[in-house]
Order: sequence, then structure tokens, then C-alpha cells
Amino acid sequence: MSAEIICVGTELLLGDILNGNAQYLAQQLAQLGIPHYHQTVVGDNPERIKQVIEIAISRAKILIFTGGLGPTPDDLTCETIADFFGVPLVESPEIIEDISQKFAQRGRVMTPSNRKQALIPQGADILPNPTGTAPGIIWQPRPDVTIFTFPGVPSEMHRMWEETAVPFLKSQGWGQEIIYSCSLKFWGIGESALAEKVTAYLNLPNPTVAPYAGKGEVRLRVSAKAPSEAAAEALILPVEKQIKDIAGLDFYGVNNDTLASVVGGLLRASGETLSVAESCTGGLLGQMLTEISGSSDYFWGGVISYDNSVKVGLLGVKAEDLDQWGAVSDTVAEQMALGVKTRLSTTWGLSITGIAGPNGGTETKPVGLVYIGLAGPNDEVKSFKYQFGTMRDRSFIRLLSASTALDLLRRRLLTR
Amino acid sequence: MSAEIICVGTELLLGDILNGNAQYLAQQLAQLGIPHYHQTVVGDNPERIKQVIEIAISRAKILIFTGGLGPTPDDLTCETIADFFGVPLVESPEIIEDISQKFAQRGRVMTPSNRKQALIPQGADILPNPTGTAPGIIWQPRPDVTIFTFPGVPSEMHRMWEETAVPFLKSQGWGQEIIYSCSLKFWGIGESALAEKVTAYLNLPNPTVAPYAGKGEVRLRVSAKAPSEAAAEALILPVEKQIKDIAGLDFYGVNNDTLASVVGGLLRASGETLSVAESCTGGLLGQMLTEISGSSDYFWGGVISYDNSVKVGLLGVKAEDLDQWGAVSDTVAEQMALGVKTRLSTTWGLSITGIAGPNGGTETKPVGLVYIGLAGPNDEVKSFKYQFGTMRDRSFIRLLSASTALDLLRRRLLTR
Repeated sequence: MSAEIICVGTELLLGDILNGNAQYLAQQLAQLGIPHYHQTVVGDNPERIKQVIEIAISRAKILIFTGGLGPTPDDLTCETIADFFGVPLVESPEIIEDISQKFAQRGRVMTPSNRKQALIPQGADILPNPTGTAPGIIWQPRPDVTIFTFPGVPSEMHRMWEETAVPFLKSQGWGQEIIYSCSLKFWGIGESALAEKVTAYLNLPNPTVAPYAGKGEVRLRVSAKAPSEAAAEALILPVEKQIKDIAGLDFYGVNNDTLASVVGGLLRASGETLSVAESCTGGLLGQMLTEISGSSDYFWGGVISYDNSVKVGLLGVKAEDLDQWGAVSDTVAEQMALGVKTRLSTTWGLSITGIAGPNGGTETKPVGLVYIGLAGPNDEVKSFKYQFGTMRDRSFIRLLSASTALDLLRRRLLTR
Repeated sequence: MSAEIICVGTELLLGDILNGNAQYLAQQLAQLGIPHYHQTVVGDNPERIKQVIEIAISRAKILIFTGGLGPTPDDLTCETIADFFGVPLVESPEIIEDISQKFAQRGRVMTPSNRKQALIPQGADILPNPTGTAPGIIWQPRPDVTIFTFPGVPSEMHRMWEETAVPFLKSQGWGQEIIYSCSLKFWGIGESALAEKVTAYLNLPNPTVAPYAGKGEVRLRVSAKAPSEAAAEALILPVEKQIKDIAGLDFYGVNNDTLASVVGGLLRASGETLSVAESCTGGLLGQMLTEISGSSDYFWGGVISYDNSVKVGLLGVKAEDLDQWGAVSDTVAEQMALGVKTRLSTTWGLSITGIAGPNGGTETKPVGLVYIGLAGPNDEVKSFKYQFGTMRDRSFIRLLSASTALDLLRRRLLTR
């Protein structure tokens, strides 16, 4: 008894819009524990919509449509579904009343084309749309098929789903078993290396563990099927703990944690403060830190020392060292970190200087070469050299640089 | 002769990620004039993937797969496709060599599980992946079926599509009649206000003009269908010119232009320089400016003055003014802009101070209140007050603040 999501709209086929509706419905189905194996996108074309229905009812019992319920002639979803099952459309006085009222409220007059939106297949129930004019339907044209239709406008669809579809599905016995997931996040280890370390967990039946690679980071999603969130958590917890033990410092957080939020939490706990000096990242590190509301508790600011004159003038980097070693060097990274820490009177100072590309690389200092400096209590200072590769693009090298700087500080704070 | 997009990945079925790959490929197919009527999402399940292939080859001749090419056991796309067509997988020495080199470059050792990524169906061509370890394939298992596979990581997929798939498709005769689009970008005007101004253009047959609202900005996509890019441009150009004239200064650029790149172009042209002082944006403005390669020609750096002590110490904001007016005030915005401009010896200084929320708002200074300061030649300085609304979230308020600062400088540079 599985569901299929069918999104109708030529704008999806032209790539004009991102299919956020499919993601939303997928999350909702997972939460209710309704299995869902296929999503289909098809244009506003009756013949092709019918073929899609034919395929969908051969592999799913619940068909969830979004899109194509509007008042314009290219909106054909509802009439095509009725036609497929050989059922006539009837005008619903209830919908006519509702639409007229909404138009009156906005001081407008209902147009004839809106009348079309009041046509539903005979025997279908109305799925009311509190905010828009296009209602949906809940309909069982055959005992083994349940159809939902929703408008494509996300805000309308979400509210209709939550207020009407979810209670209906629960009344049908769904939502007894839910799928609950937790993402474990890692930095400093590749997807395949991590997968090999935790290989024993990748074939568990419940909870399941699956690896995903993001931009520089790796995640393991641990998903449990259980009668309640608490029961799912109880299944997940021991596995989560064991994986954390195996991964050690490469594990940095769960779910919505970011490297910046984790570092922020550690600094807040120890009552320490941080400042940054950024060259090739140009503000990205500060931006990541201040994305977190409340970061002013521990982040005091920094210097974007893009030009060498700023490195000298605001950070106290020695001009002769810039001449001798170049801006992209361990010496300058250390002076930047120490300079910003001293001038802003913070516990820690983090610096980044590197070549983000695509231009500016040389044979001895290629694109992707990045030095990160970390200055701390008692003016301890250390620099770290990275080669993020000549094939990565500018924004990726910058992201890796800023994230790695945060990760260095995280490891330092955890191992003292 | 149409194409079908098939996205493989259980994470899509669980709603963990948004299907941006489908949108990207849909746009690309439209540009090449390749018809495309269906998109399918299916999990990492060999039986279901095979059923999806069966259906897809009955209605399309070009099958474009994304996802499921990784090194872990749940990545099954390539072997399942080979299995469907009854063709054995062979190890490609070329891919083994490429993966080993990439691992060596990053100072890591190739793991046995990466060897799996070198297996391709006998007779398939390699679709090289310049930035990742998972190559794709271009394969005609039957005369009437062409298969492309791409990794699910968007940046890798985009580059492979542009560098290898597009030239291949063009060599097969696609892209003869193309849809060519140009995006006109606007800042400082709402979608409906712009649509009303250019209403006469919204019903043109060729080129078509369609409005889209993004985060704070509005775009008009002008699309022409023509035998060549040059012919399409000839159709688009007069419409583009007329719309620009109507929009005036609200129009800021086309296609990949950003406010930062446009401001950068203006500064480069006038041989002037810029520095920034950021409070609530915490580095975002600097980050946006330095996203542009070559920005060191005109962007010298800045100060992230998140804490008031930094405003005083590094920017010379007067402590008594901070006391009297508060950090979020026109006085402080002006002192920040002038302070950074003077200390970094640049032509222009831009500052931002505001309340990004969700906490920190008061009755007189609510969340969303932002002051932007602009200092220029002869120490001219001005501040601008914005209320970006209490209902927007932190990241949106920060984005609006940084973008509006850039837009203010853009307008200033264009009207002197």
C-alpha cells in the first residue's frame, strides 16, 4: 500500500520552478510512515496525464497530485482524472459559494473561468482550500485507489495537507508507524573512508544507516521505523552512540548543527571569544559565524584583509614578511591570526589566506593553496597548510577554507 | 525523440533534499530544444530502477540519470542499467588512473570501494568528472536509446553536462532550433509593480517575457525560439532595450550579473576602490564582493565590527555616540562608513548596522531595522534607513541588507 506523488505542470518541465512540493510531500509521507517509491512530473497534457495515472495505479494505491487546478484553460488535472475513471464532473454549489465569498472579500467579482474550479468528479469529497480559490479532492474512484489533488501553490498545498489530508489519512490507520531520521555530520573524512569504518552498520534493518556526501562534509542518515517518535529515538540512540565512538573527532554534530554553531556552542560553554582575519574568503567565515542568532555572545568581529595594505595597517602583519614569504604563507597566516586576536582582545583568532582562483595561481603557489592560522591563549599560534586542489572552483575552495578553519578550532577546543 | 529525466536516490523519496538537478536538466533540455515530457524519481532499488527504465524507453529516446554513482553499496544506478540491457560491467583503467590521481592530489589513499566507480557497461563511453571521483557514461545500448548518467552532486553534474554532454548532443544534431533566454534583473521594485510597467510585453509570442520573483529581486525572462543563438539574440535585443528604458535604474543587470559584479564593474571602470564595515551582516557583504574573481582590483577589505568595542577600536566610532544613539543608528552607520573608508584609504566606504533578529528587537528598534552608510570622495557621507520587516527571517534580512548596500552604491555611481 504505497503512495505516488504526481506533479503536473509544464513549468516544471521547462525548469522554471523548483519542485519543492515533491520534497514537502515526501517528508510528510515519511513522517506518516506511508511508503512512497516513485515521483512523477508530467506536463499539462491530458493524454500524458492519463498514461501516468495508468502506470501509477499499477504500482501505488494512493495517488497524490499537485498542480493544474487553476482557473486557466491549461489547468486540466481534475477533469483528466475524472475522464480516466469514466466519471462525470459535477458542479459543487459549496465550492461556488466559497469562491464567491472569497472574491467578495477581496472586493472582486468572480469570473466565469473560476466556475471551472467548482467542477469535481461525481462522488469525490472536497478538500477545502482555506487561502486560495482552487479546492482539491479526496476520491476513491475504485476501492483500491485513493486520489488526492492539491493546487501547486506551496502555501495553499501545505495548509490543505495538514488540515484535511493528514487527519483523513490518520483516520484510515496511517501514522501508526512513523519513520524518524537523524543525520550525523562529519568533517575531515571522505564518504568512502567513513563508509568503510562503519560498514557493519550499513546493512542494519531498523534503524537503517545511509551515507551522503555534501560539499566537503559527509552525513550518515540513521532512520528508524517505529510506532512513535520516542520509540524511534530509542532505536536510533545506541547506533548513534556507537557510530560517534567509531568516528571520534571526525563527527561534529547532528541534524541542523553546522560547524559554526558547534564552535559557537563550545565557545559559549567556555566563556571564550573569537575574532577572524580573512583574506581569500573575504568575509565568508564571519558570515558563517554570524548566521547563528546569538553569536554576538562569543564572536566579536574581524578584519577582511583582502589587500596587503590592510594586512599591514589593521592587523600588524610585517611588510618585510609579506615581501619575503608572500601573502599566502604560514608566516603571514600566523601574524594575521595573532594580529586580529590581539587587536580585538579575544581568546582566539582565526585567519585564512590563500588562492581561491581561478586566477592568481603560480607554480609554487597553485590555486587551492590555503594557510589557516589559529592563535589562542598565551599567544600560542600555529598555522596549517592545505591544498584544496586546482580543479575545484572558487566558491568551493572558499567554502572548504572557511569550514576547515572552523573545524580546526573545534578540534582544538575539544582536545585541551 | 524526447528525453526523460530519471533521478535516483532514496534521499529524494524521503524529502531530505530538493530536486534541483531535475530543474537544472529541464532548463538545459529546453535550451537545446530537446522535448521532455516526464521526470521520474525512484529510490536506490534495482528492481524499481529497472521498471522505470522499461517505462522510460517506451516513451523517450534519451534517458538522463542523476544520482547513485557513488562508492557506497547503495549506489546502484550504473550496474542496474547494465543489468537491464544484459551487458557486463568492465573496469576502466582510465577511470582507475583518474581516481588514483585525485586521491593522491588530496594526500589520501584510494579505498577499495572507490574501485567500484570505475566499472562501466561494456561499450559505454566515459563522461569525465573533472571535480569528483564518480564519472558518468554516455551509452547507446540499443540504436534507439541513448543513456547519460551523472552523479547527484550538483556542481559535478553541471560541469559534466556543460563540458561533455552538450557538445555530444549538439554533434547529434540537437540545438538546431533552440530556445534562448536572457534574464533581466531588477532591484528596488516589486514583481507586480514591474509587471504593470511592462504589461504590454507579457503577451508577446516570440520572444516571450515572463516575470519571476526571487529573494528581494525580480527577474524578467525573455525567451526566443530561433535557429541560432544569434537569431534569438536579434529577437530579444529590441525588447530588452525597451524594457531597460522603462525600468530605468531599477534594472541592474542580466543573466549571471550580481549586484556585486555590477558594482565591481563600475568601480573598475572608474579606477576607484571600496571598503566595508559590517555589523549585522557579519561578513556577508565582503563575501558577496569577493565571490567575484578579480575583485582585489577594487575591493580592499573591511572590518567586521560585530561587537561595539570593534566599532570604536578599529573604525573610530565615538563611544559617546554609541551610548547616545545606539549601535543601530544613522550616526553610527555614517561613522562606520567614514571610518573604514579613511582607515583603508579607499574611494568609497559602505557600512551596515541593524537588527537581523530573531532576537534583539525593541519597540523603538524592531527586528528588520537596518541603517546603511555610504561614504565617498571628499568625505561625503550619507545614511539610509530601512525597515525590512519583522516577519522576515534572519538570513533574509541579512541578504536584503547586504544587497541593498550594494544597490545604493550602484545607484550613486550611476548618477554622478
